[in-house]
Amino acid sequence: MNAEQIQASTSSATSIRVGVLGFGGLGQAAARVVALKQEMILVATADKEGYAYKKDGLNAQDCIKTYNSQGSVGYLEPFGCLTTNSIQDLIESRSPVDGYFLALPNLPNDFIASVAKQFIKSGWQGVLVDAIKRTSAVEQLLAMKDELAGNGITYMTGCGATPGLLTAAASLAAQSYAEVHKVEITFGVGIANWEAYRATIREDIAHMPGYNVETASAMTDVEVAALLDETDGILVLENMEHADDIMLELAGICSRENVTVGGVVDTRNPKKPLSTNVKVTGRTFEGRISTHTFTLGDETSMAANVCGPAFGYLKAGKQLHNKGIYGILTAAEVMPLFVR
Amino acid sequence: MNAEQIQASTSSATSIRVGVLGFGGLGQAAARVVALKQEMILVATADKEGYAYKKDGLNAQDCIKTYNSQGSVGYLEPFGCLTTNSIQDLIESRSPVDGYFLALPNLPNDFIASVAKQFIKSGWQGVLVDAIKRTSAVEQLLAMKDELAGNGITYMTGCGATPGLLTAAASLAAQSYAEVHKVEITFGVGIANWEAYRATIREDIAHMPGYNVETASAMTDVEVAALLDETDGILVLENMEHADDIMLELAGICSRENVTVGGVVDTRNPKKPLSTNVKVTGRTFEGRISTHTFTLGDETSMAANVCGPAFGYLKAGKQLHNKGIYGILTAAEVMPLFVR
Repeated sequence: MNAEQIQASTSSATSIRVGVLGFGGLGQAAARVVALKQEMILVATADKEGYAYKKDGLNAQDCIKTYNSQGSVGYLEPFGCLTTNSIQDLIESRSPVDGYFLALPNLPNDFIASVAKQFIKSGWQGVLVDAIKRTSAVEQLLAMKDELAGNGITYMTGCGATPGLLTAAASLAAQSYAEVHKVEITFGVGIANWEAYRATIREDIAHMPGYNVETASAMTDVEVAALLDETDGILVLENMEHADDIMLELAGICSRENVTVGGVVDTRNPKKPLSTNVKVTGRTFEGRISTHTFTLGDETSMAANVCGPAFGYLKAGKQLHNKGIYGILTAAEVMPLFVR
Repeated sequence: MNAEQIQASTSSATSIRVGVLGFGGLGQAAARVVALKQEMILVATADKEGYAYKKDGLNAQDCIKTYNSQGSVGYLEPFGCLTTNSIQDLIESRSPVDGYFLALPNLPNDFIASVAKQFIKSGWQGVLVDAIKRTSAVEQLLAMKDELAGNGITYMTGCGATPGLLTAAASLAAQSYAEVHKVEITFGVGIANWEAYRATIREDIAHMPGYNVETASAMTDVEVAALLDETDGILVLENMEHADDIMLELAGICSRENVTVGGVVDTRNPKKPLSTNVKVTGRTFEGRISTHTFTLGDETSMAANVCGPAFGYLKAGKQLHNKGIYGILTAAEVMPLFVR
């Protein structure tokens, strides 16, 4: 840490006050990511059974320890509050938060939209960032554009890894072409054990033939384990309903039919079964057909590729919010800003 | 072209009126790129000896034919004007232009900055985009930040291929990391004959040991040809002074010392000697070291990778300008917007 960074970390007046909603695998990773940032301060965390708030910064490790030992950050002394209406109660506590990362599972499919509605109703103003996956879930949020804009909320949707980082890379790659023919996103995810990402794995299962959001969501842990036993822990996903398609269509890059998302998830091995990548094929102004490729390093985890961009978009959203730009934006049209 | 696109192409009221300053290889490619866009209309072109302006759109091919047969777009009947003070005279003609792409060689090194000063003095308001390469040239522009902002100009600097597309890709890739260790840009350029890009090749030579901007600029065509004969037409460039470094430093991603730019230019073969790519290495929040890679398809030309992004940034700049956001921005902090 150099002199300038030390100054930044101690000048909390200019730090962005961040809240993390949801405290499963993704929320905990998000808290750890923020803990390393000088420009951000983690002031709020919430899960199903409670929330914690501390004006000058929560300790991420304390939140994680409390959640994992007692089941809710609401048990964190003396900053926690136990409530089954945690998001609503946190908002209504009027504790200052500049932006929230919604590290929430999107089961049921309208859950994130319902959370956004709570923020709108409350009169809270600031930045909301999601790492939502499904096209239909993003569509629900896009339909709330005017409400969000009218209530002083800058909402950044689809801002995780895919959609998010890879959608933005596709948006960039498209620039070389007069016409974009196809965008192919293929991801590889490796996790040591599925129990650390229960909600995320159920969302993945919901994309498989014979399953949907409701049936996957209703599966018991035993049922999930049995399914994974059948496939040696591997989930192969094809033609997934992923919001990269609507985001790239909205950005005018190509029609959603030309965007495909698929991947392989190994739930028993942290090594990725393949390198996550996006390929963008198009025709240049000279009439040549070519393909740009953006490939993620295998050593970067899903959590790093989701949480890093999410906070990069939160910082970008804060700049827009400061300039009075409200409404809803996607990862395909805004450059995430690096958070030191 | 579908119904929506036809509507867009005929509704010039909402089209962005674009000017291209400089009409060598890059300017001509830029004009051809704009000709394919429904959302943009080419209203102005200029070279050393003249300019052409047409409110409802110049024909790019006519401009190119005129320039190549007579030496200046100023000869284009009846829209041309012959003048050795073409940029100044075009600005002072008060012909409406929303944004200019400065497809100008940056020899001498303060040339683009001097053009920006002409715009500032004139009272013109709009978007300026450059595809400038050298760090020192970008620094001159950054120093004009307040003047640009105070005069209602939204200036987008370093918005070509590198810096530009690849810098933006590095900025995106950085998001997965808590700390970025290095950014390595390696480009391959293949052109059939160097005479089509006289200014660009001299800029490349200026990066070679024993040369500088002044000596390269002063070389005769015979001297350039002789140098290229010695190397079989290949230019190998290492540790180039490239503005990607200052742009990534400004964006807070890493110190400029950790950004390297090099490449190989084949001036006798349109096939690229290697695939242009950027590698971004860093440490994730979990402490893992990894590298993301963005690789351009070999079939995309330098012209496609420069002009596409330049107009994408011009569109993004226009949105910012419409919202009253003036000053100077780099390719590392703004997402270029796809131009249909």
